[in-house]
Parts: sequence; structure tokens; C-alpha cells
Amino acid sequence: MDDIAFDDRKHKRDKRSFLSVSWQQLAAVGLVAVLGVCLGVLIGYFSRGGTALPTDSWEYMLTHEGPAWVSQRLIDDISAANIEENLRLLTQTTRLAGTASDLQGAQYIRDRWLADGLDHVMLTPYDVALSYPTTPNTVTMVAANGTVVFTGRRIEEGFENDPDAVTYYSAYSPPGEAEGDLVFANHGSMEDFQYLVDQGVDLAGKIVIVKYGAVGRGDKAVNAEKFGALGVIVYSDPGDYGNPDGPNYPETWFLSGSGVQRGSLNGDYGDLLTPGYPAKEYAYRTDINNITATGLASIPTQPIGWEDAATLMRHLSGPAAPSDWQGGLGFNYSVGPGFVGPYANRKVHLKVTNQNVLRRTYNVIGTIRGSVEPDRYVLYGNHRDGWVYGAVDPTSGTACMLEIIRVLGALVKSGSWRPKRTIVFGSWGSEEFGLIGSTEWAEEYVKTLTQRAVAYINVDIAVMANDTMRVRGSKLLQTAIFDATKKVPSHERSLVSDAGNRKSRMKRAGLEKSLYETMVENTPNVNGQPAETPRFLEMGRGSDYVVFYHRLGIPSVDLMFVQNREKPGVQPVPIYPAYHTAFDTFDYVKRFIDPEFKAHQAVARVAIETVRVLSDSMILPFDLLSFADKMQAYLTGVQLEHGEVLTAQGVSLEYLESAVTNFTSAAVRLERKIGDVNKLNPLDVRALNDKLLYLERAFIDPLGLPGPPFLWHVAAGFSRFNSSSAAFPSLTDAILDDSIMNPEQRLDAINKRLSVITFIIQSAASILTEAGMES
Amino acid sequence: MDDIAFDDRKHKRDKRSFLSVSWQQLAAVGLVAVLGVCLGVLIGYFSRGGTALPTDSWEYMLTHEGPAWVSQRLIDDISAANIEENLRLLTQTTRLAGTASDLQGAQYIRDRWLADGLDHVMLTPYDVALSYPTTPNTVTMVAANGTVVFTGRRIEEGFENDPDAVTYYSAYSPPGEAEGDLVFANHGSMEDFQYLVDQGVDLAGKIVIVKYGAVGRGDKAVNAEKFGALGVIVYSDPGDYGNPDGPNYPETWFLSGSGVQRGSLNGDYGDLLTPGYPAKEYAYRTDINNITATGLASIPTQPIGWEDAATLMRHLSGPAAPSDWQGGLGFNYSVGPGFVGPYANRKVHLKVTNQNVLRRTYNVIGTIRGSVEPDRYVLYGNHRDGWVYGAVDPTSGTACMLEIIRVLGALVKSGSWRPKRTIVFGSWGSEEFGLIGSTEWAEEYVKTLTQRAVAYINVDIAVMANDTMRVRGSKLLQTAIFDATKKVPSHERSLVSDAGNRKSRMKRAGLEKSLYETMVENTPNVNGQPAETPRFLEMGRGSDYVVFYHRLGIPSVDLMFVQNREKPGVQPVPIYPAYHTAFDTFDYVKRFIDPEFKAHQAVARVAIETVRVLSDSMILPFDLLSFADKMQAYLTGVQLEHGEVLTAQGVSLEYLESAVTNFTSAAVRLERKIGDVNKLNPLDVRALNDKLLYLERAFIDPLGLPGPPFLWHVAAGFSRFNSSSAAFPSLTDAILDDSIMNPEQRLDAINKRLSVITFIIQSAASILTEAGMES
Repeated sequence: MDDIAFDDRKHKRDKRSFLSVSWQQLAAVGLVAVLGVCLGVLIGYFSRGGTALPTDSWEYMLTHEGPAWVSQRLIDDISAANIEENLRLLTQTTRLAGTASDLQGAQYIRDRWLADGLDHVMLTPYDVALSYPTTPNTVTMVAANGTVVFTGRRIEEGFENDPDAVTYYSAYSPPGEAEGDLVFANHGSMEDFQYLVDQGVDLAGKIVIVKYGAVGRGDKAVNAEKFGALGVIVYSDPGDYGNPDGPNYPETWFLSGSGVQRGSLNGDYGDLLTPGYPAKEYAYRTDINNITATGLASIPTQPIGWEDAATLMRHLSGPAAPSDWQGGLGFNYSVGPGFVGPYANRKVHLKVTNQNVLRRTYNVIGTIRGSVEPDRYVLYGNHRDGWVYGAVDPTSGTACMLEIIRVLGALVKSGSWRPKRTIVFGSWGSEEFGLIGSTEWAEEYVKTLTQRAVAYINVDIAVMANDTMRVRGSKLLQTAIFDATKKVPSHERSLVSDAGNRKSRMKRAGLEKSLYETMVENTPNVNGQPAETPRFLEMGRGSDYVVFYHRLGIPSVDLMFVQNREKPGVQPVPIYPAYHTAFDTFDYVKRFIDPEFKAHQAVARVAIETVRVLSDSMILPFDLLSFADKMQAYLTGVQLEHGEVLTAQGVSLEYLESAVTNFTSAAVRLERKIGDVNKLNPLDVRALNDKLLYLERAFIDPLGLPGPPFLWHVAAGFSRFNSSSAAFPSLTDAILDDSIMNPEQRLDAINKRLSVITFIIQSAASILTEAGMES
Repeated sequence: MDDIAFDDRKHKRDKRSFLSVSWQQLAAVGLVAVLGVCLGVLIGYFSRGGTALPTDSWEYMLTHEGPAWVSQRLIDDISAANIEENLRLLTQTTRLAGTASDLQGAQYIRDRWLADGLDHVMLTPYDVALSYPTTPNTVTMVAANGTVVFTGRRIEEGFENDPDAVTYYSAYSPPGEAEGDLVFANHGSMEDFQYLVDQGVDLAGKIVIVKYGAVGRGDKAVNAEKFGALGVIVYSDPGDYGNPDGPNYPETWFLSGSGVQRGSLNGDYGDLLTPGYPAKEYAYRTDINNITATGLASIPTQPIGWEDAATLMRHLSGPAAPSDWQGGLGFNYSVGPGFVGPYANRKVHLKVTNQNVLRRTYNVIGTIRGSVEPDRYVLYGNHRDGWVYGAVDPTSGTACMLEIIRVLGALVKSGSWRPKRTIVFGSWGSEEFGLIGSTEWAEEYVKTLTQRAVAYINVDIAVMANDTMRVRGSKLLQTAIFDATKKVPSHERSLVSDAGNRKSRMKRAGLEKSLYETMVENTPNVNGQPAETPRFLEMGRGSDYVVFYHRLGIPSVDLMFVQNREKPGVQPVPIYPAYHTAFDTFDYVKRFIDPEFKAHQAVARVAIETVRVLSDSMILPFDLLSFADKMQAYLTGVQLEHGEVLTAQGVSLEYLESAVTNFTSAAVRLERKIGDVNKLNPLDVRALNDKLLYLERAFIDPLGLPGPPFLWHVAAGFSRFNSSSAAFPSLTDAILDDSIMNPEQRLDAINKRLSVITFIIQSAASILTEAGMES
């Protein structure tokens, strides 16, 4: 009973342990439950949205910067040896646009890019007007009895039997024959011809010989025609491109006597038959037998080598040429007309057989799709065509582009990284004839590019000399480029191995020298003091960036390794001497330009890092303040250069000044906002990026100057009357153009253009400040 | 001892309950802990990212549609009584642009909008060329002896002593005096004048009287001048605008004899001194004394009432006018020249004192800031100026706009809702002189609007008659508008109370009739069958949408209540009879147009719902398929109308056809994608919306036709030679313009424009398909 009673009691106790526990037990269980809940809350919270967000989820990708290791990895992976091998492979055939190599080259590039991991690669063909000699053009000297006593070369020494190398010619020169007394006209500028006229030299009916330089390739004939000349011969003076006392190529990089700079006379951009629109199958085309463009005269032009130029010029009659017209041919230049001494009564005869033909040219377009903003494009490009083998121009750039794509493609293929924005690569066709491939493509996709392109990076000639890297372009990209050059080791440290470990040890030890430092060292003194930063130059108009930058307002940059012309011991040249000649071969690069391809490597590294930062930074790395400073500098330039003239005509710059001030304030305010933006809100970031993206677009005014050459950037550009000035070109034109308009019309034009520029800058300020619409 | 032992044992047992529990107890505690953790995980998970996301967090707002109740609430809150009161208040002063009422009206609107809760309101002033009579213009009849025997009215009956009401005039008519024999020339078209010449009526030195209609207001004088006339008198024929047998205003809405339609002769858009650019303080202006524009002749034009027209025309000599030239003056019209019978030898004398003056005009710009995408703008606007009191034109629209802003503002102020995108309201100045305020503003903010504007909704005359609502505009907006009309109750159910409860009961009972149903009922039969959907008409060129739609490619829509001209018992009028007369007053609206303001209420409801859906839908409610259908219809129109002519000239439409096919396929593919888009990824949604946003922009070709009138939409527009055709206007122009160009030039123009149109449609397809760049 006791037992039973006990059992009973025990039983009751046991039951109570579940149903009626003691307060201690209750508290204990409660505590456990509370702790459990707390633990669970933490687990649940962080499993959902905390540091444990999967890095490939959109929530993570939209709100976080890409991985930090990518930058160094991309830079490290760029190999000089690969670039060298690319160049060697690509320069085994000639590269003349519109020939068989146009398509073959494009297919080769396409296959490489596909193999290297681009997401999408396509060819974009355009049918465009190109120009070739039908039979080799000739320059001859004819005796009084009609006998041909001298015939100039048709092609460079050593290339006579190369069936693919094109003979000397100037593209788009009209065909024609001309014969007459020879006159030497220096560079063929209007001033040069006027000087001759002032000296009593009649140019009517003459054949004119001029040096390359000072005036655009096509303008020489345009000017000569105005003075009545019948034909133009142009040559590269050894005083500019050669070593007058030898040795020249192949002993050195200097131009030897048979080297001839080919080139296009066309001064416009894009296909000449379809101005403003893409040269597609549906395109309306103007008459190919009646092409008009800036730089196209109706008299023929033919380029020759300086050996032949010496033959032609040695016995010129007439007064001596002025001292600043003299050159390196080894005798004193006279101006003519006609010959004296042994050559008396001889005439010069010029025969140009060029024909304009419709040919198909190809771009290759390759993309890496952006992970977060596929509809934002970072553009990178270079052309593929060259005049003969084109090793430096353009293949040094293409060799770098291939290596960049290999490195990016490998990383993307590995699955460990993909840029937030889409990267679009362009291998352009027919650049040499007038930036045709890039222009047609941009014309075809003008709507898409205007809305989606972030920036355009151009590396055409990657290395024309290996002293230092030159940067030109939109100031918006200055910081991105300079930051990249700080990360890239200098090409000068040829002892620094590519091997990661050794380099990082050196870096830790402070032994690594950056490309940025090299660029600073190679920058000319500023006010007598060593420069503290590299120069960042105005964009030019000589490569495929023109349509992107000057017509569409896409921030662009052009990278190139160049001579430091002020370096002791350097013999400065206007451009590398083999430019546009048959001598521009792999051998030339390997022996004279960049034997170890370290400069190539450096420019490719800057480019790949710039592509990365533009395509992968959450906020576009655009340099608002430098851009605003530039605008102020443009204004100051106009004030200094033209202020007095303007004041004298009663023109006030007051509104322009206040527009620039408004723009600067807006830029400063937006710059501050960038620091405050909530990176966790993707639409706030996108709205901010859109402001940056569309800023330079606001400087484009398609109403301003209709028709070719479609240079619509009202702030940065080129005056027709002052090649050094780049600020507000339409205004500068109006100020300087006293030849065409009467004073009243000129004043009217000045005021009108000033008003447009003021408006455009105010528009740009609105883009940054929401125009009172987002309050 | 036992007790001790017992106690001890008990103590041990108690200790064991903490330190060495039974397995049951352990299991129980474990279970509690596990349950706790599970509960916690759930709490933690959902507290972070689940349904419990705070609805005002960006994560929520970016990934969720706005609250569903907003739509009905906005529609319900629009009050007819408020609109009536707005109209009453706003029509107490005259509204002529550039006068004191321009600024006063703008300030009134600004104050109302600020009080009503807009986030930001500003005035945007522009200094523009307007035109007014300096002293009242006169039309007189002069006897042979020089005595003035009749002087026409200067202003409408009853307004003679109103110092603010402007006398009869046609803005921008040049000043001048002219005297001569009168000739009646029907509508003043080229064909009308040619008919007169063919009848032997010499127009040289004559004064011409013409009816309003058929030809643009300014073109009548342009045409007359070509035939040598010295001046133009224009009147509204009672056969068109009046009730020839009475009664007329003030008994009915028909035009009485002193009512005169004022208006601008200017056929261009925007300030005439600053074409293409904003009329700001920095603007370059052309000479105000030498204004040129479409529609501006150098002979004077003066409008008169039909009472005076009857006096002038009753005794015209010459042959009888053709039957289709006759009208409602109560006698048979002759054409002249000069008078017979009692009026023989009398001349008509015209004196116009108009002067062009630079005046300041004001827009009011008000915004509701978007919560998620403040950089996307839904635009809504109407002008504020009218010729006299302008009750219908434009104040019926302004009265609605004020009510819409009150309703939206109240909801935003309450804190319960804010649209995802920014809404921008514009109260435009100087529309009547050539859409000046809207055009200058769009010109000033062209860069911002091109990038950020989603759509433009225009309600100018809200109600000119209260039969049905007419919709015109971009097909992209068709579904958004029609969906809104399905939600809005028909204005015809005047018995339906505004009170929410009763209405929703009726709705549940199916008794509610929608505006959409009314619109369908009032749509003309299609192929003899009742229409199934309302019409959605081509955009016109008569109100402030022109710059947004035709120049910038911002999808736009224009809403207006109109007559059903085919309804039994309706006497159709070209436009409400008091249009541009002093009779257009509050009283006129209240008595004849919309006594209960139910039509006003309905149009305001459609507009507010359209604004809501455009500003608050995650995905823009753009109707891609209707837009693509329209493109096909344009093409079919060209094929049907001009196919034979084109084929005969060897012009192929093949490329245009394939472009339209490509575009349609791209539209269909994107439409499918819209269904699949991941609404949880804000950047996917934004990218999709950007495609929709920029689609119609792609149809703009600023290269196409430089200079005013800047109608750059290549698909929708107006041929100069065929007022009914709206498809591909530049092509139609080239096809029909056989008077100016020789056949070869015309063929060239046809091919060129065809190529541009094909390119533009391909561009638009690219916008939708990523152009192979996003792969």
C-alpha cells in the first residue's frame, strides 16, 4: 500500500513533471524557448538578407561593388608575349580596306573572340565608296621633245614584287593627267601659295610639289586648285621624317627615300555616299562618280618618296625658297617654276588612275553581357584596316585589344566574375578612308548608342614610340584613366617580372614604379617647374572616336604611347616615320618601336583597367570637377584670345560666363551628392549614373551645323581658322572668319553662336540639377 | 531521519530536475527549444524581407505595384462642382497672352498649386514676339467720292465697352492699308483662286473676302498674295458656324453676326525670333520687324463677323459663285470683282494696325516628386491664354487640370500615396500665337525631356460639345486611355450620384455605364457594322502637344469632348461656334456646352487615371502591339495610295516592308518579355521601361528636315500636299510635290526619304531588340 501509495505518488509526480511543473522547471523551459526564439530570429534574419546574401543574387549584385581582386588580376594577366604574338600573326597579310583581307581579317577576329569567351560576336557589313588606283599612278619628267627622261617609283623598295601591297596613291584623289612646270610650295597652305604669288610666281597651269605637314592631306590640293595649279605631288621631307645624313630604314626607324605616306584626302567622316545615315542595303546613295567632301579637289594628288622628290626639286629654277621652307634633301630648295641647268625645259607629268568603287567593309562587334545593367554599354574599339601591312597603324592596337579580350573572356568563362555593364568591342573597317566603319555603325545604332553608351575607349596606334603614354579625350574620364595608370607598373621597369609573387613583394617594398610616375616624368615643365600630373589633352579628330565623341557626345578617350619630344637625345618626328608606308611591318615594331612589347603591355593594362572600372563600378567614375574646370578654361581661353575683339564689337560674354558658373555649381553639388547616394537603392544609383551618362550628350547640338562633317560638340572641337583652338569652335569660327562674311554678318553670327553655346551649357547644368522638375 | 532522508531525497530529486533530468523532460525541453528556434526563424525571416516589409521601404516600393485603391479614389474624388467653380473663377478676366493677365494668371495658378500640395511650383518666363493691333483695325466701304459709307464692327456686340477685350484681328498679319474691288474667293485655297482666274476674274489689286475653313488661317493670305491681291478679309459663314434662320447666340450656341474668330496666322511653332532655341535672356533673336514664318504673307488679313460680311457681299457683281461656294448669308453669293446696284463703284478699304512686340509670357511648372523614379516625368499640360475670356478654349481644360491637381495633391499630402514617377504639370503661356510657351519650355529643357519624359497628356479644350470623348495621339497610349475610360462612369448617367456608396451599389448591380461604352456608341459604323471599339485618331498639330510629340517623340495624347456629328438631330459644326470669339464665356459653357459639367468631370477622370497609371505602374502601360499595327497600317496606306505611282517609277517598297516586319516582330517579342520580367529586380524593370520609353524617340530624325517647323516624326505627321494623310509625311510630300521639282529630282527625293524612313524603323526595332549588343 505504501508502495502503491508511493507508486501512486510517484506517478502523480511524474505526471506533474509534464502537466504541472514546478516554477523552476517552467522558468527553465521558458528560458530555453526564449533563447531558441532569439537564436532563430538571428538565423532567420541573416539567412534572408544579411551578410549571407548569395553573391550571385540580384539583391547582392545590385547593391555591392564587384570583387576587389578583379582589377589586379586583369592587369596581371595582360601578357607582353601574347601581344607580340598577336601582332606577328595579324601582320602576315596586308590590311587594305575593301579587299579580300577585310572580310578574312574580320572572320579571324570573330573566331578568336568567340573562342576567347565573348557572349556574342557578329560582323556588320557596309557597302561604302572606297578608292584605289586601277593601274599604278606615275610621276614622270618629260623632256622638251616629249621623251620621258625620269619615272618615279611606284612602291617602296623591297615591295616591288608583293602582289598585295598597294602602290603609292592618295585615296579619293580624282583620276587625271596633268603636265606643267614644277613649283615648290612648301606645305601647300593658303599662305604658302599667296607667298609665291607675291613673289611673282604664277601658279596657273603648274604642277605643285609640297611637303607633308601643317595642312590637312586633302587641303593641299584644294588650296592649289584655287591658285590654278593642275596637279599636286606630296612627299615626306627627310628633315621631318628621315635622318638626312643617314642611316635610315632599315638601319634605323627613320624614313628612307622610297617610303611613301599613303592616305585619304577625304576630310569628312563616314561613307561619302550616305552622309548621316548607315550604308546599308536600303540606303539612298549619292552619285559615286560625283563625290564631294571636305578636302576633295578636282585636280589630282599623288604622293612620292623623298628620293624622287630630290630628283624633281634639285634643279628647280626661280628664287630660293625661304629658310623655313627648306628641308633635309641635301640641297637648297628653290621654288621654280620649272627647271634650270641640265633639266631646263623639262616638264613634270602626273598620271592618277584612281577610281571610286563601292566595296563591302566589315566591322566585328563583340560583347560581354553585363550582369546587372546589360543595357549600359562600355565601348572599346580600334580599326582593322591599314594601308599596307599596318603593323603600328592599326595592328599594335588590335594586338592589344585581342589580349584584353582574352583576359576578360577567361575570367568571365571561369564564372568567377562578370561586369555589371555590357562591354562592346568594335574592330572597325575602312578607318583609313575616313573613319568609315565606326561612323556607319554609330549611324546605324545612333538611337541605341545615344541612350545606352557609357563611354568609348579607342586604342588605334597603341605604341608609336615607347617613351610615355599620351591621353586625349573627355575630361570626364581623366580620373578613371589616371587611376588606372597608377595601378599599372611602368613599362620602363623591364626587370620587373610578370610573376605575381615577385611583383607584389616589390610593391610592398615600394620598388614598383607606376606608369603614372613615368607619365609625370615625361610631362613638360609647367611654368618652369616640373609637372605634378600628366597632361590630359584635347580629343583629336584622327581616329574612330570622332563619331562617338564629336557627334554623339559619348565621353571618349584615346590612348597611345608616344615620343617624349623634349627628352635629351630624342630626334622628334611628327609621327613615327614608317606611318602609312609599306615599311610599317612587324619587323619595324620589333626592332625600333617596342622590342619587348612592354609599352604595348602597359597601354593594354591601362585600357583593361579602364574598361573594368567603367563597366563594374556601381557609380560611374566620371570626373565632374575636371570637366567643369575645363569649361571654365574654355571660357578663359575665349576671354584671353578674343575678349578685346569681342568687346570692341559690343559683344558681351556675360551670359556665357553665368552659364559656365551655373554649370560649375551644378557639377559641384552633384559631386557632393555622389558621396551621399544610398548604394542600397539601385534606382537611386541608376538615376545618378544617368545624370553622369547623359552629361556630355547635352553638349551636342544637331541644330547647330547641319550636314557633314557633323561635329556637333559645341564645347570641344576644331575651328576651321585656328587649328590650335578647341574651345567653342563655332564661336571661334565666327570670330576669325573675316574672309567670307561682311562685318555685320559676322557680328550676327558671333551673337547667334554665343547664344547657342550659352543655351547648351545651361542645358548641361539642367541635366545635373533636375531642371526644377524633380524639386 | 526519515524525514531528513525524505527531505534529502526530495532535495536530490529537485536538483536532478535541473542537472540530471529524465529523458522525457530532456525531450520536452528540446522540443520547446526547437519550436522556439523555428518560430524565431520564421519571425526573423519575415521581419526582414517577407510580407512584413514596411510598405514605405525602398525594397518594397521598388518591387511592388502601388496600392490598388488609389485608382478608384482618384476617379471618385474628381468633382464636377469644383470644375465648374474653377471655370467661373478663371473666366472673370480676359486671358490674352502677353498682357497683364499673363503674369496674374500664372501667379494665381502657382498659388493654387502650392496650396493644393504640389512639391514644387515655378514660373518660367520667356520673352517672345507677339502681335496686337495698336488701334482697332477697320474694314470700310468707300464711295467713289471718297466718303466712307460703311464701317464694320470692331468687336462683338455687348463687348464694346470692355477695355480688356481685344478687338478683331489676326495675329502676325502685317500692318497696312489696302483698297480695291472686292472679290469672293470661297476658302482662299490655291484651287479657289485658280478657279477665279479661269473664270476671267483678275485678282491683281483686289481685296479678297474668304470664308474660314478648308485652308489654314495664314495660308489664305499667302495664296491671295500669289495672285496679286492686296488684302484679305475672312469671316465665319453662318452656314458653317451659325443657324442661318436663327436663333443664334445668345439664344443658342450658334454664332451670331458679330462673333469673330480671332487667331494667329503663324503656321510655325514656338517663338518666331528664336527658332529651335529657348527665348531666354541670352537668346539670339532675329529682327522683330522682319518676321518670317509659314503662313505669313506680306499683305494684311482682317477677320470680320458674318453680319458685316453680308453687307460687303450682298451686292457683289460678277458671275455667281459655284454652288459649293455658297453659304448661309441668305442670298446667292457672286464672286465680284466690285459691286453692282446700290453699291456700284464702291471700294473696300482695309486698315490693319498690328504691331509685333516683344512681350514676356509665363508658364507655370508644378511637380509631384516620384517616390521611386523621380527622374522619370509624366507630363500633363494645357495653355492658359485665350483670345478674350477663353472659357472653352483653354479654360475648360485648365479648370479640369486644377481639379486633378487638387485631388492628387490631397492624396499626396495625406501621406497615404505618392506616385513612383514624377508628375510635371505645365500651364502654358501664348499657345494661341503658335504654341509658344510649351515650345520654348521644351526647347529649354530638350535634353532633360528627351531623356526623362515618359509621356505627355494634353487637355486643351476639355469639352467643346458633350456627346463623346475624342482621343488623338500615339498608339502607345491607346490601351492606357481605353482602360481608363472603362473605369470612368459615363457622363450620360446624370442620375448617378457622386456618392461612393450608391455608386458602388450600382456598379455591383451592373447599372453603371462606363465612358468607354458611351464612346463606342458614338463611334461611326465600321463597314456598315456598329463599331466595337472607340476610335483612336492621329495626333493633330493644333495644341501644345506638337513639340513633345512631333519634335521630341514623347508619346502624347490629346483628350477632348466633342460633338457626335452623325447623331440624329445634331447640327454639325467644324468647331464650337464661339471659338476664339468674345462669346466664349462661362455663361456660354454653362448654358450650352456642359451645364452640369459632367463631361468635364469625365475627361478629368480619364486624365487623372491616365496620369496615375503612367506614373505609378511598375511597367509602363505602353501598347506595343497597337503601335506596331499602326506602322503596318501606315505602310499599307502608302501601298494603296501610291503603290502604282511608285512602281511606275521603279521605286521598290521592299526594304520598307521588311523594316516594318522586323519592327513588328521585335514588338511582339518584347511584349512577351514584359510578361516574363522579374518584377523583383528593379534594374530589369527599369531596362524594360527604358526600351518602351525611348521607342517613339527613335522615330525622330533631326537630320531629316532642318529648320522650322521642326516636325521630325518620320512616321506620323502631315504632308504639305495631302492634309488627310499622316503616314510617312516626308515620303508623301516627295510623291505629291510635282509642282516644284522635276521628275528626276522627285524620284531622287522619293528614294532618299524612303531610305531614311526605312532606317528609322530599323532603328526603332533595334531599340526593342538590343541591336545585337546585349545578346
